[in-house]
Amino acid sequence: MNLRDLNDPSQLKNMSIKELTDLSTQIRQFILNSVSQTGGHLSSNLGTVELTVALHKVFNSPKDKIIFDVGHQSYTHKILTGRREKFYTLRQKGGLSGFQRRNESEHDPWEAGHSSTSISAALGMAAARDLQKQNFEIISVIGDGAITGGMALEALNDLGAQQRKVIIIFNDNKMSISRNHGGMETAITHLRTSEFYRNTKKEVNSSKSSNLVNKTVHKILHAGRNYLKNQFIDAPLFSQFNLDYIGPVDGHNLSELIPVLETARDHEGPIVVHVVTKKGKGYPLAEKDTVGAWHGVSPFDLASGKSKVLHTKKEISWSEIISNTLIDLAAGDEKITAITPAMANGSKLLKFQSIFPDRFFDCGIAEQHAITLASGMAVGGLHPFVSVYSTFLQRAYDQISHDLCRMNLPVVVGVDRAGLVGDDGDTHQGIYDIGYLRSIPNTIVCQPKDGREAQDLLYTGFKTQKPFFIRYPRGNEVYIPNEEYAQIPIGSWTKTVIGNPEQIVITYGPDVKRIIKKARSNNMNLLVVNARFFKPIDLGMLRKIKEMNLPITIYETDNVSGGLSDAILEGLNVIEPQVDVMAIQDKFVEHGSIRALRKLERISTEDLFERLENNVDQTGSEADKSVEQPN
Amino acid sequence: MNLRDLNDPSQLKNMSIKELTDLSTQIRQFILNSVSQTGGHLSSNLGTVELTVALHKVFNSPKDKIIFDVGHQSYTHKILTGRREKFYTLRQKGGLSGFQRRNESEHDPWEAGHSSTSISAALGMAAARDLQKQNFEIISVIGDGAITGGMALEALNDLGAQQRKVIIIFNDNKMSISRNHGGMETAITHLRTSEFYRNTKKEVNSSKSSNLVNKTVHKILHAGRNYLKNQFIDAPLFSQFNLDYIGPVDGHNLSELIPVLETARDHEGPIVVHVVTKKGKGYPLAEKDTVGAWHGVSPFDLASGKSKVLHTKKEISWSEIISNTLIDLAAGDEKITAITPAMANGSKLLKFQSIFPDRFFDCGIAEQHAITLASGMAVGGLHPFVSVYSTFLQRAYDQISHDLCRMNLPVVVGVDRAGLVGDDGDTHQGIYDIGYLRSIPNTIVCQPKDGREAQDLLYTGFKTQKPFFIRYPRGNEVYIPNEEYAQIPIGSWTKTVIGNPEQIVITYGPDVKRIIKKARSNNMNLLVVNARFFKPIDLGMLRKIKEMNLPITIYETDNVSGGLSDAILEGLNVIEPQVDVMAIQDKFVEHGSIRALRKLERISTEDLFERLENNVDQTGSEADKSVEQPN
Repeated sequence: MNLRDLNDPSQLKNMSIKELTDLSTQIRQFILNSVSQTGGHLSSNLGTVELTVALHKVFNSPKDKIIFDVGHQSYTHKILTGRREKFYTLRQKGGLSGFQRRNESEHDPWEAGHSSTSISAALGMAAARDLQKQNFEIISVIGDGAITGGMALEALNDLGAQQRKVIIIFNDNKMSISRNHGGMETAITHLRTSEFYRNTKKEVNSSKSSNLVNKTVHKILHAGRNYLKNQFIDAPLFSQFNLDYIGPVDGHNLSELIPVLETARDHEGPIVVHVVTKKGKGYPLAEKDTVGAWHGVSPFDLASGKSKVLHTKKEISWSEIISNTLIDLAAGDEKITAITPAMANGSKLLKFQSIFPDRFFDCGIAEQHAITLASGMAVGGLHPFVSVYSTFLQRAYDQISHDLCRMNLPVVVGVDRAGLVGDDGDTHQGIYDIGYLRSIPNTIVCQPKDGREAQDLLYTGFKTQKPFFIRYPRGNEVYIPNEEYAQIPIGSWTKTVIGNPEQIVITYGPDVKRIIKKARSNNMNLLVVNARFFKPIDLGMLRKIKEMNLPITIYETDNVSGGLSDAILEGLNVIEPQVDVMAIQDKFVEHGSIRALRKLERISTEDLFERLENNVDQTGSEADKSVEQPN
Repeated sequence: MNLRDLNDPSQLKNMSIKELTDLSTQIRQFILNSVSQTGGHLSSNLGTVELTVALHKVFNSPKDKIIFDVGHQSYTHKILTGRREKFYTLRQKGGLSGFQRRNESEHDPWEAGHSSTSISAALGMAAARDLQKQNFEIISVIGDGAITGGMALEALNDLGAQQRKVIIIFNDNKMSISRNHGGMETAITHLRTSEFYRNTKKEVNSSKSSNLVNKTVHKILHAGRNYLKNQFIDAPLFSQFNLDYIGPVDGHNLSELIPVLETARDHEGPIVVHVVTKKGKGYPLAEKDTVGAWHGVSPFDLASGKSKVLHTKKEISWSEIISNTLIDLAAGDEKITAITPAMANGSKLLKFQSIFPDRFFDCGIAEQHAITLASGMAVGGLHPFVSVYSTFLQRAYDQISHDLCRMNLPVVVGVDRAGLVGDDGDTHQGIYDIGYLRSIPNTIVCQPKDGREAQDLLYTGFKTQKPFFIRYPRGNEVYIPNEEYAQIPIGSWTKTVIGNPEQIVITYGPDVKRIIKKARSNNMNLLVVNARFFKPIDLGMLRKIKEMNLPITIYETDNVSGGLSDAILEGLNVIEPQVDVMAIQDKFVEHGSIRALRKLERISTEDLFERLENNVDQTGSEADKSVEQPN
């Protein structure tokens, strides 16, 4: 069948293995042609073509629910479920999302973008199915990187307890976004080379009959869990979670995949299907990639593999400016370490790794652990730097609060991809970190306006010896290494006077330069404030510009709730109170009875009434006519 | 030795097993006497007396670092490290903390209060030790509940990869705070009943010689990892993480514990020591407890076990008001489910569990999973309620944002223990949730002023079919079941007029009633606003009270950053702008190029300059004299 004639996954039902294999070849070529033009996730999608075809052959979507963990490997699924013709709109405004989207298709039962959520989601849906006495299959497709994320392990544990029917496709591609790095890798390697896979393969090779494999698999499963356990005594990774397991199976061989998936479908209770795939399958450059360079790509030339996006020579990514500076600082301070939760390539830390291998830590997809690991290092006397994308740092909110900031430890956190990130969409926008970091006591949060200030702020971060968050956006910036570093006073802003100011703009990041440039070329009279610290803010400068009595515009390119404007409104209310605010003053509060603590923090009702009584004359009042009113 | 003569853990070095056993008995009695007077954590501390004595016998604190996960089992450690005499001040203002505290003793290398952080911390400290070529042991004591928390599993995985010397004491008390509930429990049960333990016990029983055990243990370990694996082929839980394992050992038998700990100390590389203890050991009421009723206690009578804290009859805990209401609502809506991350007793959900066992889900210490599990249920058509303490909900920040709120799903979250919690101190204060929840789009966040409003708000939450957060404090409140439920308009506040108002107080929660009562009895002229919604806020009422032109006091008993006052200052700036705020308007932003998204959200530089140009006359300006100034 020509791919162009495929409009619904039900068309796969009557196709032979040969036809499906041919279809897979067409899909792989379609993805290569398409992604090389639009950009997008490449390796993960090339690796899951046959797996997805097999899933749609065996299961009945949308009745059966197929959840792709993260979702960046769902292109074949989209192509098979009526979205092929829209593929040229991928990741463009109004076009197809790069992930599963509920409002895009009834075949997308769940949405993600962050990793390790699919097992929790599947188990929740399974509970809903069972309680409502419905009957369908729920499949979670999860990679070997994502499965080491803490919440996936929490969910495996709960699934093992609840024993609801969920099929977990463990997509083992021997490489997460960065090289998968963990103790579990050893156990997974054991599984990969275990008896069942080799036996199955032998039988398939000798008989060329998927039916025989099917029977073998059935035989093993029906012999019960103990038989399976005995098959894999070397490394029964999943039986530790009380889950049945089948595999490993070659994820690019449909005659192996289909009978195994049929067995999983017919199996009672939860089961893990171990599928071994190759990331980048079919595109040699991506197959050879070991650092994740072909994970997410810009438009590129298919023949040469060269990116079609050109940069000016002096511009490099913000991540690289930070990374270069880190290397320079680390050369002079052997206590500096660098930690990444599986994003060494994206965060541009590979160079640091090659220069300081002992001081580089890739801790896997584990943002929570990354922050507390760094906190432990800080307690041990090191000067750790953690690089995390803004959107993924959300995973570590509690560790930032409870471990890092409560103990007020010297850790510098690089909040990469801060602000709008664009193509990846709403699961990846880094526009919330100012809000959630400002609500935690002891945080220092800043953003440089240019490459020079980036270097100075990073230097300042290490000098400050406190929890220090430096955010920087996706994109490029001029980089000229600083000859020497300046320590920037914490909380200080700068201002640029253009002409004879008639109004004031407060902004931050690369927009500072853009606005100054545009105001100059427009001959505007403007005061531009570089609010490079979100916390603490520069109350002194705020007071001065307030006194100028000019219109003030806060130009904030992140989310409004909790962001710079909230900080400034708080500041203005301090300078010239509109309302009298009694509250706990942005701190961690020690132990004691609640009554004692309310007194300590000066928020007891007695404190309130003292203030209220100071506000009014103590003359006699009228009779009480109090009533509660709705509005 | 009399406990009173013990001032430093080094005194344990020369004591015999018999003397240490006698000391343990004294410590257990001391804890019982002390905690029954002050309140505190009981069961966990009674369970770890011998283990802690053995740790201080074998290791050299403070050179060696002993980290207690959570820290609520560190009382014996405190007693042994010079803090016995201050024990009567436990959890009181200015007194000893109920957890490890770095500023309390050099024997406390780390602080916690939330679970599952100790392995990350230990690994970070181990990296610092190794890079600085120092030489000491690092021990993490972690329970069978905490080890199933996602971040502990992330850390185990990284420890297995890094292979640094860390000793993990797996304190298996067969029960976390609530009954431990997970697939891993099966694997742990296998371990408990495995050969090594039984063999060892036999040898000990026959020879009464700890030296022999020591030799046996050495023999096993020196035979290498494969020998160990063969010993435990049934359930090599920790070998899956590439970690050596020894145990299980009786955690109340010093002659077994000490040689095993010595072996672990002398072992190269990371090792897990499996210690089986009994929570509540030595106090029959606590030993028999299966639901965690003796986990944290108020002062109680040692003989009868009865609490010394008396409540008026009509008052029950806020948790119970919510739980009773949930049961009532669930009787009429079979789609309602209740989820708890291992806090069934604390959250008062045991009654719900007994009435609706199929609709009750204890998912273990796994807040991340709990929120996404609920989101999956919501996708599947259920109406889930998740009960989490405010401070622990921090763990699920990303799941609240990325899963629950981004998909705008109908889940009601009970934010229990909101506000100051008192005795547990800074790791447990629930004063940050308003800030972090407000910074997430699509959240509805509220708090009832009394038991009646609590019932109505919970009812409203289910009716609203959106992410709905209802927060309520620790403590008690009058409960009279509502005859019928009122659906409260989202974002609506109420006001109470007392006399002829001369000023206005905006507050929330139980303080509303307290303030009204006190104002009445003081004959004050006051308008009291019950700001029961933190998001959205009641702009209409805010406008009205603003127009009254009276002094306004915001009385906020939570953290100021991101809280109610920020919301009100934002609101006042909308009503009567002091500053013009351009920003992303509290939403999730879809995919597209950054340029396209900036236009879409009306935050492009063009949008800015359009506004700026509207602000001023378009007359010619002076020559540009722009300079950047520091301040």
